[in-house]
Amino acid sequence: MNTKHVYTFGDGKAEGRADMRDLLGGKGANLAEMNLIGVPVPAGFTITTEVCTVYNQQGRDAVQRLIENEVKKGIAGTEKIMNATFGSKGETFPLLVSVRSGARKSMPGMMDTVLNLGMNDDAVKILADKSGNPRFAWDSYRRFVQMYGDVVMGITAAKGEHNPFEAEIDKLKKQKGVLNDTDFSVEDLQLLVERFKQVVKDRTGKTFPTDPWEQLWGAICAVFDSWMTERAILYRRLEQIPEEWGTAVNVQAMVYGNMGETSATGVAFTRDAATGEDIFNGEYLINAQGEDVVSGARTPRAITIEGSRRWAKQQGNITEETRAAHFPSLEETMPKAYAQLNAVQQKLEDYFHDMQDLEFTIQDGKLWMLQTRSGKRTGAAMIKMAIDMLRQGLIDEKTAIERLEANKLDELLHPVFDKESLRKATPVVKGLAASPGAACGRVVFFADEAEEWKAREEKVILVRLETSPEDLRGMAVSEGILTARGGMTSHAAVVARGMGKCCVSGAGDIEVDYVNRCFKIKNTTTVIREGDWISLNGSTGQVYSGKIETTAAELSADFETIMKLSDKYTRMHVRTNADTPRDARVAREFGASGIGLCRTEHMFFEGDRIKAVREMILAENEEGRRRALEKLLPMQRGDFEGIFDAMNDLPVTVRLLDPPLHEFTPNDLPSQQEMASEMGVPVEKVIAKVNALHEINPMLGHRGCRLGNTYPEITEMQARAIIEAACNLKLKGKNPRPEIMVPLVGELKELEEQTRIIRSVAEQVFSEKGIRVEYLVGTMIEIPRAALTADQIASVAEFFSFGTNDLTQMTYGYSRDDVAKFLPVYIEKGILKNDPFEILDKKGVGKLIETGVSLGRSTKPGLKVGVCGEHGGEPSSVIFCHKVGMDYVSCSPYRVPIARLAAAQAALRYA
Amino acid sequence: MNTKHVYTFGDGKAEGRADMRDLLGGKGANLAEMNLIGVPVPAGFTITTEVCTVYNQQGRDAVQRLIENEVKKGIAGTEKIMNATFGSKGETFPLLVSVRSGARKSMPGMMDTVLNLGMNDDAVKILADKSGNPRFAWDSYRRFVQMYGDVVMGITAAKGEHNPFEAEIDKLKKQKGVLNDTDFSVEDLQLLVERFKQVVKDRTGKTFPTDPWEQLWGAICAVFDSWMTERAILYRRLEQIPEEWGTAVNVQAMVYGNMGETSATGVAFTRDAATGEDIFNGEYLINAQGEDVVSGARTPRAITIEGSRRWAKQQGNITEETRAAHFPSLEETMPKAYAQLNAVQQKLEDYFHDMQDLEFTIQDGKLWMLQTRSGKRTGAAMIKMAIDMLRQGLIDEKTAIERLEANKLDELLHPVFDKESLRKATPVVKGLAASPGAACGRVVFFADEAEEWKAREEKVILVRLETSPEDLRGMAVSEGILTARGGMTSHAAVVARGMGKCCVSGAGDIEVDYVNRCFKIKNTTTVIREGDWISLNGSTGQVYSGKIETTAAELSADFETIMKLSDKYTRMHVRTNADTPRDARVAREFGASGIGLCRTEHMFFEGDRIKAVREMILAENEEGRRRALEKLLPMQRGDFEGIFDAMNDLPVTVRLLDPPLHEFTPNDLPSQQEMASEMGVPVEKVIAKVNALHEINPMLGHRGCRLGNTYPEITEMQARAIIEAACNLKLKGKNPRPEIMVPLVGELKELEEQTRIIRSVAEQVFSEKGIRVEYLVGTMIEIPRAALTADQIASVAEFFSFGTNDLTQMTYGYSRDDVAKFLPVYIEKGILKNDPFEILDKKGVGKLIETGVSLGRSTKPGLKVGVCGEHGGEPSSVIFCHKVGMDYVSCSPYRVPIARLAAAQAALRYA
Repeated sequence: MNTKHVYTFGDGKAEGRADMRDLLGGKGANLAEMNLIGVPVPAGFTITTEVCTVYNQQGRDAVQRLIENEVKKGIAGTEKIMNATFGSKGETFPLLVSVRSGARKSMPGMMDTVLNLGMNDDAVKILADKSGNPRFAWDSYRRFVQMYGDVVMGITAAKGEHNPFEAEIDKLKKQKGVLNDTDFSVEDLQLLVERFKQVVKDRTGKTFPTDPWEQLWGAICAVFDSWMTERAILYRRLEQIPEEWGTAVNVQAMVYGNMGETSATGVAFTRDAATGEDIFNGEYLINAQGEDVVSGARTPRAITIEGSRRWAKQQGNITEETRAAHFPSLEETMPKAYAQLNAVQQKLEDYFHDMQDLEFTIQDGKLWMLQTRSGKRTGAAMIKMAIDMLRQGLIDEKTAIERLEANKLDELLHPVFDKESLRKATPVVKGLAASPGAACGRVVFFADEAEEWKAREEKVILVRLETSPEDLRGMAVSEGILTARGGMTSHAAVVARGMGKCCVSGAGDIEVDYVNRCFKIKNTTTVIREGDWISLNGSTGQVYSGKIETTAAELSADFETIMKLSDKYTRMHVRTNADTPRDARVAREFGASGIGLCRTEHMFFEGDRIKAVREMILAENEEGRRRALEKLLPMQRGDFEGIFDAMNDLPVTVRLLDPPLHEFTPNDLPSQQEMASEMGVPVEKVIAKVNALHEINPMLGHRGCRLGNTYPEITEMQARAIIEAACNLKLKGKNPRPEIMVPLVGELKELEEQTRIIRSVAEQVFSEKGIRVEYLVGTMIEIPRAALTADQIASVAEFFSFGTNDLTQMTYGYSRDDVAKFLPVYIEKGILKNDPFEILDKKGVGKLIETGVSLGRSTKPGLKVGVCGEHGGEPSSVIFCHKVGMDYVSCSPYRVPIARLAAAQAALRYA
Repeated sequence: MNTKHVYTFGDGKAEGRADMRDLLGGKGANLAEMNLIGVPVPAGFTITTEVCTVYNQQGRDAVQRLIENEVKKGIAGTEKIMNATFGSKGETFPLLVSVRSGARKSMPGMMDTVLNLGMNDDAVKILADKSGNPRFAWDSYRRFVQMYGDVVMGITAAKGEHNPFEAEIDKLKKQKGVLNDTDFSVEDLQLLVERFKQVVKDRTGKTFPTDPWEQLWGAICAVFDSWMTERAILYRRLEQIPEEWGTAVNVQAMVYGNMGETSATGVAFTRDAATGEDIFNGEYLINAQGEDVVSGARTPRAITIEGSRRWAKQQGNITEETRAAHFPSLEETMPKAYAQLNAVQQKLEDYFHDMQDLEFTIQDGKLWMLQTRSGKRTGAAMIKMAIDMLRQGLIDEKTAIERLEANKLDELLHPVFDKESLRKATPVVKGLAASPGAACGRVVFFADEAEEWKAREEKVILVRLETSPEDLRGMAVSEGILTARGGMTSHAAVVARGMGKCCVSGAGDIEVDYVNRCFKIKNTTTVIREGDWISLNGSTGQVYSGKIETTAAELSADFETIMKLSDKYTRMHVRTNADTPRDARVAREFGASGIGLCRTEHMFFEGDRIKAVREMILAENEEGRRRALEKLLPMQRGDFEGIFDAMNDLPVTVRLLDPPLHEFTPNDLPSQQEMASEMGVPVEKVIAKVNALHEINPMLGHRGCRLGNTYPEITEMQARAIIEAACNLKLKGKNPRPEIMVPLVGELKELEEQTRIIRSVAEQVFSEKGIRVEYLVGTMIEIPRAALTADQIASVAEFFSFGTNDLTQMTYGYSRDDVAKFLPVYIEKGILKNDPFEILDKKGVGKLIETGVSLGRSTKPGLKVGVCGEHGGEPSSVIFCHKVGMDYVSCSPYRVPIARLAAAQAALRYA
């Protein structure tokens, strides 16, 4: 732990730097850096993330003892630079400050902020006097009481209750007969402050604090507290941010966008966050504070003329004259400040070499930057920006790859609306194209109910006036999100983009009626009710009633460029899990360099095959089984021919029969009767067989190579089908590369025995066909014991493929089929950080994998090692696979590009 | 590999020694040693075990090339000493030899032997001439052809066929009208030799070899081949003898017990192998070869007068006169040879310091020793001999301990069948010897009815397809348990062993018919009905129809001495797995130094408890659960008071609730209806709950600390019951030492959370009671991930107890309940050497245990580590536990003595 806990900045100087984000958080580090490169930033200081840890462990008093002097010095420095006094009694301008969180990684909207801190009955008067704008002063005061009351003193609405501060505002509006906040007079605002203080007194029994220092410590601690709120914990889990990181606290002099018509506030992006186009864009509001832009209470306007015109065009019926008169851009209303802002945005992007998400305030014509950070973006925008910046020479190839979020490629790979189906669809309303993609689902109005519907396997679209962090889990389970309010930077828009989820925001023409669970389209008779199907196009903002079919996405040239770049830097190959020629072709198009897992049993269910399989199961003896297997042989051979053909020249790993035989028999009486009559046996025989096959724990039962070792004739048939198929293709001039994989090996002798059978069948086939093909025999490593004895197993295996699904089941002792009974509680309580079936557990399962790889290679130094299973397409797991020295990962076809990128990133990171 | 492959011996000289048994096998090493100490042994030589390995890998030709010269030298040396010629043409006495196997560890009867080798048409004549006993010569010849034809040329009876040589003998007997072999004339024997040769010709197409050298090489290779026969492989598996050891081959000059009435052959033991008494005993036959004694074709007689008299007494109606006349002892028939033999046996026992099993031949009045080895003995004899020899100063304490076979103590701890009664019994089927002892009772098929029958003072045997926790009380009142399914570690087996109750499990040939209340034996007409008497031998797996009387085992003073000696040398403690005060007391009597596993759920089934448990399960919310748990609290507390009292001053490890909740709900509709009416809820609710609790793989499901972490109130109740019980006892002046064990931990946070709850409850109880007790909180290590992350887990755990049952399930991916579907085939095929649930797998599971222990102690150097589970009472597993540095093992009460002895042996072996 450092002995310095507070880093000051302001007036072109700073104790921190951009590369100190671990200590100062992203916001604090960038505030410091902006100072150093000459961007105008209000003075202030950052309390380090280390203090957050002290707070969590030792509490408020310890923190106050630890940093009190440094905070005092920080305030003194800020006072000096801003020429204002904290707790001024009138002799000077009062110093008001903002107190904001700032973690290493941005967690937008997740933690608390207090603005206008330092305000009290003295300060408001001086502010009113000195600014000559009493309305502004009193408006700031009432905002402060409301915000501090909420954030620090914990006054929020009970369930079903209206927010008590908002209730006071509504009451006063009615009393005064005014419509908007901005219509309140100074006296009204003074009254509101009094009523707000009374709310605080009523609700907490405490008097609202007037001492700025007391206010400050309260706010600092509240920010630290907000690190541990449920929503913050949830968000961290989704984004995999460690709890230990903690948040920094930024205390910064207030500047005022609400000081009148020459003041404004806004947010901006140096490029288009949705498309990636190199167009400066953003939104602003005159005479407002930052929260107004984000909350959606007033609809913000575009910063640039271009953006403003595009907006007007989207609205459909706004002429250029109307636009210029009523919805002018910042470029038009404050051209000088705009020019300054434009220069700053350029400077910041050039400096940080990345698209920046900016917050700014214009106070009485003067621009202040409040924040810069790398902006969130859609997958498509991410790709385009990286390639554009690479072409523009802003970044090099490695940086282009490293910067990408592999998981976001997923958005580009997902289906879009089928054009034919789309043509027939009825557009009912349009909103902002907040997060791209196509989504289709049933309307639900409440986040918790979205979760319930999803639990019933319903696809849902969450429709809200606007979203808040409480809706996060509901959003996560929805296909898409539609909101009536809020712009491109609203909560719904930002979060949806982060999740790679389709979102249409600010569809102002919908009237959401929570009570009757429906929404109406203004000026029409259209009513859409809970449970109705709607479809959203997040790339255009269109909303359709009904269900629209979707089709696969088309990939851009930039996407291809990224993939080629990835392959240039990667060390690992990416294969795919595919059981059919069709899947194999899709994956090949996505760049798969082979099949890592072809599950033969998936072929057992189709058409007549299941009949032959059941014949085999019912057979009384080996002879009967062989007779049934004879029938399966040509079908399996045909399947393999198709797959080897689709994957010509590339390796294809075929896994021998894996599931327990009872998966092929029916469990209900009618189906058993049907099976009996099909097989020509009494139903009692079928029932007896089903009972005999029953297992208490099928996952740990008679399956995998335990089948092949108890019924070697199955292995013989499968080996024959594979080798015959390969020979047939080779005879046609093709180049099949079969790799035969024995599943569920836990003991060397199991593999020895299976290998012996396979090789002996192969030799027979070669001599029958008069031709040989190269092939490998290897094994899945999916049983803990296989990893622990991998040195022995490698003496026989020609390759290892880690089956991380089963390995995770057995290493944790979790049945994937049953884990839902406790895993959600475990995630909720933080006992587990992630679902280990989704994200590979590096500590436990990973340790077994490392053991397996290194033991295997201790016996056979060049042993080919890969992974198959869900984790092969999950970026952090792919990176782990690289680190332990695997040769390839294998994943579902649609995740192949993600794995390719992640593999390249791993290669760069651990070069 | 040594360059010397053949070791000669004879005439008081030998190239080998007794301590060379790895190289020469037990027989060869002892033949050498007997020469060196002056015991008369026919000359010969030993081919080393290393040659067997060469044979298995490279075949006959390679072996012949390798050792031909050495074998020739060996024969030449033997010729010289015995003054005879191999392949004599008449000038000298012909040298005939025996060719016998000899592994490091005795495998009696498992491998092949050829006697009288070297015999041919020349030799027989010379032998007839020189011995003056043509009958003996021709008898030897026909024996040789028969034996060589069988062993070397592979002529055996086909299925259902009579042995072809025996058929010739029978034919000739009929022709000649004689009854016994001994009645054949010389001509008959000559005819027989001719016919035998014809059999060989007919069966193999080959002429019987006349060249002694050809005969010799054939026999040597046949002995090597017999190392790999099915029965030898099976025996090695049972006795855990590695295949790599190989067998030596002993070629030794024949001496002839069948040279007439002054010749004899026999076997003898230096002490009584059944009782251990220090009485020389054995059996012999006049005018016979060794095989006659063993084969049972003629009834052998006792060597000593004492033995002979005892035998006569057992027969009941043989007077001393009759005995002396018709069944005289060797002591009487050949007093001089007997005196020699008696001196030799004394010399050998004194020399080897152990009871010897001897083979001897008296040729024309001269004694020859053919073999000496440590004799097999019963458990009782083993103990008595060790203690006797210790007292006699033949061995020291350490040797006494090291020599014992720990597993054999088991025989002494359980009731046994009365021998007389057993002789009359009919065995009907065989299952696994799941829990030793003998039991006899009337067949009952339902656990509740077992209780009813027991209440009527009936002795019952509970017969089930398999048992479940619901059957617990029924099992407790039964004399023994018989199941159709499940292995050595099935529920029935484990529980029965824990109860010290006889159990035969997995008797796959019985077909249980619950409806008609009977069971059938497959492929027979035997039907056994409810109420019929059956008897089980849990030590052999035999099931008998009818009643066999049993007698209780009594523990001897010698047994106590052995236990005390063990404790003197041991390092590990031995605790017990016990769930009731009764079990605890039994175990304490057997010397348990605490309870290593007290399964709290076993208490949940009794009386009203199951009702409260079900109430908890049906509760809609935490409040409802708490209400039900309130009812359980006093009952659990009472149980713990009883156990802490029984184990006063000793540690008691209490495991928190482990099984999934569905084990407490009934599965069939009638029981569900009963439960519903008992609970006062509609049956639909019960059914819905049962369905909701259903799991695909319950073994990997919602159980262990996953219950305690999802329903913390269960942990709270159990912690309270334990701590309150401990406080109550302490208030009474007792010294309870609770150790609370959290089951199924796989992730540190699971344990942290449970520990937090336990400690907080404990503090509450302490303050309520105004007293404190010392207690520990630790965890089972039974999930692979727990072992892999043991360094983290040890930061919280105060002790580790390896749950090797579950750890084995997950490390192998074997469900104990289902493993019977393939494990027998795996053992049969040699894929697995042992059932890993019976004998701890050192390579895989053991590696995880070692990892867990060393990681755990890397965090907490003094960490207390033990094992609970079936392996804690299995000697080789106990030795492993010692080697990895465990502090204790815990096993079922009846295995405590075995574990104590094994622990002492481990301490001596790895001092």
